[in-house]
Amino acid sequence: MIIEPVARPLPGSLEPTLPGRWYTDPTIFAREQAAILEASWSCVVRSADIARPGDWEVATVGREQVIVSRNRRGEVRAFLNVCRHRGMRVCTEPSGSSRSLQCGYHAWTYDLDGRLVAAPNLTRMPDVDGARYGLVGVHVREWLGYVWVCLAAEPPSFSETVLGEVVTRLGDVRNLDNYGVDGIALGRRITYDVAANWKLVIENFQECYHCATIHPELTEVLPEFAEGWAAQAYVNHGAAFGDEVQGFTVDGSAGTARLPSVAAEQDRRYYAVTFRPNVFVNLVPDHVVLHRMVPLAVDRTRVVCDWLFAPEVVAAGTDVSASVELFHRVNVQDFDACEKTQPSMSSSAYAEGGVLVPAEHHIGEFHAWVRDAVGE
Amino acid sequence: MIIEPVARPLPGSLEPTLPGRWYTDPTIFAREQAAILEASWSCVVRSADIARPGDWEVATVGREQVIVSRNRRGEVRAFLNVCRHRGMRVCTEPSGSSRSLQCGYHAWTYDLDGRLVAAPNLTRMPDVDGARYGLVGVHVREWLGYVWVCLAAEPPSFSETVLGEVVTRLGDVRNLDNYGVDGIALGRRITYDVAANWKLVIENFQECYHCATIHPELTEVLPEFAEGWAAQAYVNHGAAFGDEVQGFTVDGSAGTARLPSVAAEQDRRYYAVTFRPNVFVNLVPDHVVLHRMVPLAVDRTRVVCDWLFAPEVVAAGTDVSASVELFHRVNVQDFDACEKTQPSMSSSAYAEGGVLVPAEHHIGEFHAWVRDAVGE
Amino acid sequence: MIIEPVARPLPGSLEPTLPGRWYTDPTIFAREQAAILEASWSCVVRSADIARPGDWEVATVGREQVIVSRNRRGEVRAFLNVCRHRGMRVCTEPSGSSRSLQCGYHAWTYDLDGRLVAAPNLTRMPDVDGARYGLVGVHVREWLGYVWVCLAAEPPSFSETVLGEVVTRLGDVRNLDNYGVDGIALGRRITYDVAANWKLVIENFQECYHCATIHPELTEVLPEFAEGWAAQAYVNHGAAFGDEVQGFTVDGSAGTARLPSVAAEQDRRYYAVTFRPNVFVNLVPDHVVLHRMVPLAVDRTRVVCDWLFAPEVVAAGTDVSASVELFHRVNVQDFDACEKTQPSMSSSAYAEGGVLVPAEHHIGEFHAWVRDAVGE
Repeated sequence: MIIEPVARPLPGSLEPTLPGRWYTDPTIFAREQAAILEASWSCVVRSADIARPGDWEVATVGREQVIVSRNRRGEVRAFLNVCRHRGMRVCTEPSGSSRSLQCGYHAWTYDLDGRLVAAPNLTRMPDVDGARYGLVGVHVREWLGYVWVCLAAEPPSFSETVLGEVVTRLGDVRNLDNYGVDGIALGRRITYDVAANWKLVIENFQECYHCATIHPELTEVLPEFAEGWAAQAYVNHGAAFGDEVQGFTVDGSAGTARLPSVAAEQDRRYYAVTFRPNVFVNLVPDHVVLHRMVPLAVDRTRVVCDWLFAPEVVAAGTDVSASVELFHRVNVQDFDACEKTQPSMSSSAYAEGGVLVPAEHHIGEFHAWVRDAVGE
Repeated sequence: MIIEPVARPLPGSLEPTLPGRWYTDPTIFAREQAAILEASWSCVVRSADIARPGDWEVATVGREQVIVSRNRRGEVRAFLNVCRHRGMRVCTEPSGSSRSLQCGYHAWTYDLDGRLVAAPNLTRMPDVDGARYGLVGVHVREWLGYVWVCLAAEPPSFSETVLGEVVTRLGDVRNLDNYGVDGIALGRRITYDVAANWKLVIENFQECYHCATIHPELTEVLPEFAEGWAAQAYVNHGAAFGDEVQGFTVDGSAGTARLPSVAAEQDRRYYAVTFRPNVFVNLVPDHVVLHRMVPLAVDRTRVVCDWLFAPEVVAAGTDVSASVELFHRVNVQDFDACEKTQPSMSSSAYAEGGVLVPAEHHIGEFHAWVRDAVGE
Repeated sequence: MIIEPVARPLPGSLEPTLPGRWYTDPTIFAREQAAILEASWSCVVRSADIARPGDWEVATVGREQVIVSRNRRGEVRAFLNVCRHRGMRVCTEPSGSSRSLQCGYHAWTYDLDGRLVAAPNLTRMPDVDGARYGLVGVHVREWLGYVWVCLAAEPPSFSETVLGEVVTRLGDVRNLDNYGVDGIALGRRITYDVAANWKLVIENFQECYHCATIHPELTEVLPEFAEGWAAQAYVNHGAAFGDEVQGFTVDGSAGTARLPSVAAEQDRRYYAVTFRPNVFVNLVPDHVVLHRMVPLAVDRTRVVCDWLFAPEVVAAGTDVSASVELFHRVNVQDFDACEKTQPSMSSSAYAEGGVLVPAEHHIGEFHAWVRDAVGE
């Protein structure tokens, strides 16, 4: 079975990749942090993890630490985690819950909207304006059950960038809405520390030319993946489960109950969307796998992977290990390949980069987007 | 109780700190090492630890390793720890005692004044001048029972800089002399490795606006510290012990015997002097706590803290743990705050720095001094 | 006993070394990697370790990883270890044996001559030229039982550079041929990780002025070394064993059987040759000690030391520990000295470097060669 992509490139065409230094040069990485990671919408915290007023979590976005919290009215707010007085981290734990945000050094105290509301001995000082000396705010959005933040003063349009990715890949946002992602529950979270540049991880997620070589379990469940064409090479293409396969599990056994609104044509199929710069969503009838990539250094990337199921599946304590194990193995296989690629990026043999085969040509669009954003 | 400082700034005034990059930029750190740490008088070795001719210790000053030794006439000498032949460390242990300083690689041998006195097979070579090929010497002074060194070719005036700090803070050097620091004994030494820029540590030592928040034991002993004004915000101000407090100990219990020459007006009071760039002396009636900060990297500082008592107290093996524990807790509390401040220094929220409240305004003088020394 | 060198410099002359920054500056190190390590012939793999077609080992040369393998015709080939497609390491283990070289990411497959022979789905693509997309080849030579490689497009003459070193030191290549190095067997290999710049290690190997100070066992076996003149200060000078010494062993006990072709005048003598940039060969009647230095960072060098004996000695499982122990101790003593020299290289006391005594003057030629190669 060979699936033809919508716009298959001419046979015989090998296109260039980025040169190796894009994966090793700390100055390029710093520019990517500023121009891409801090300038785009990032998916950072599960809304359910800060459900009540006063709950907060600290997230890494680009080179910054961000406090993501919920105010008394239940609205999400986000701030750079830096006291305006002498700079100490205001939140020094990964998460917590409190009625205000108080710096532990000199007790400057901010309300849940970031406004400075108390500072020892300063109550009568006229120039201590609670807003002017408030925490530095960051733009926020909730969507898909996650909080998305953007550090830019003027963030790009959420609809055009984030939702636009859904349209580009699935044709219509409704095709994603069917999975009811904002209402489903976290079944399992695994965090991976990958010794590779973030773009190697993103590139890997976008192509399936490697699937036949390194993903035996995945190609067993999705036989067309053995042909090398990723679902992301098409518009609204769902890779079909193999005839004998009952569910998206490590051994093809049945998964859990189908998510209620999944359409008939979406059943027994796998869809995927990449949200530039660093989110990857996988959709199957009974669960969703959401990856977030956090670039930590030019050669190190943290990946947080959430497996999401219907709330009643999680509430009942259903065994989801066969579902989790499939994509966990895929992750381990992929990150191992990325880590064995990173050291070559500094070789003279890769100074001009490598090549993209036709099944990988859409990665070229990602490269063009990175080059354009960084301004080279 | 509110103690008014001698020259209290106008209420309502918030002054700027240094911008964040001063705490994170390795090039600024290198300039500070050259223009401040290597150009100033540094307190490096206890005189008593190199009491006899031939005793030596190795100290870190700026980017250099310095041998501090005592010659046959009992005079202190200091040299860069580098053999003039092929450069090996002449002293490869932290301390020792020997009749000469011999390099372990090719046996070039220097006397205790640094002069090259022996080298295999070179005895008849006319151009091997013992002085020309002697160890590179460093200026030395003994004061307060410590050896102070300066790596500059033309060191600044010891009186104007080091003793000048005493006058600035205590009004008169005699107010320090009363404690007889050069004759007292080491009761306890604790070394701390702090993951923060050295200036954060110095700034912390200069202000007490944080005392109420992080130092419960200290403010119990010195109640006025809860008001936020450091002893260093005044001239010759001693912070008074609380009415119920018997000694400068972790639980307010009695300390050891009062140092003999402490004046009546100095009793039951705490005084402090900061010697720029990196020494901090705390004076209480029965002991002295002397901190030395050794900047190791832009984000790492070693702090060596000595607790000094009357010689008979140490000789008798008196239990000084209640005295030591008080400032040890203060140190741990302070260094924890510094370590939680360091990561924010690279945030865009601190690109222009933070602010100093009135009780911290004297830190601004330290900032101006650093800027001036580094030449920016 | 004083041995006069062939061209002994004028007494009294102290010549300068390289300045300290040549041992600490990462940019100088990078230029050395490119202009010296990657541009010269490097000894990288024992021929016997890749004896059969399909055997391969991965070696570090300069900043590159090189696959050294044997093709179906028994010829040695070497390639940069980088897949031409997306850059993953083709060989991800240190050694192995296989009929082809297949990348583990997307299964691009190269034959043992480096030609691309298979790639999934690309069989009909006209622009996928197996030679053009073959592994990047590296020049190879076999000599002394080792594979030597050079990464330069136009390698220097092997005869003039590598064999030229033998002529310079021993007067004639036949004086080395007598040891039959290409036919002897590996008795023991020890790898050392040295925290020092590679040039400190090379300089150490070239002089014996340090022997009296740090090598008691070696000077016991070779008494003239106590005078400070290295065998390398002469042409074809063999340092004589001490009168009571039976063999080149840690305790002077008898070694193993003499290598068959060693000449009478070579008996009971030690010879040494340094092959710039990074090989050091020691010749004694019954064995050969071959060091390879691999610079890993400006302040870190891996040294691989092979002890080679007559094949029948190794085959019989003869105890060679007394022979191995002698030079192992020398190595440990030398590398300790190098590690205690490295930290001083950044001192202001070594900014202009140190000095070379007459017995070290030939190191000046090495310095001139490094300066010339790097272009400063």
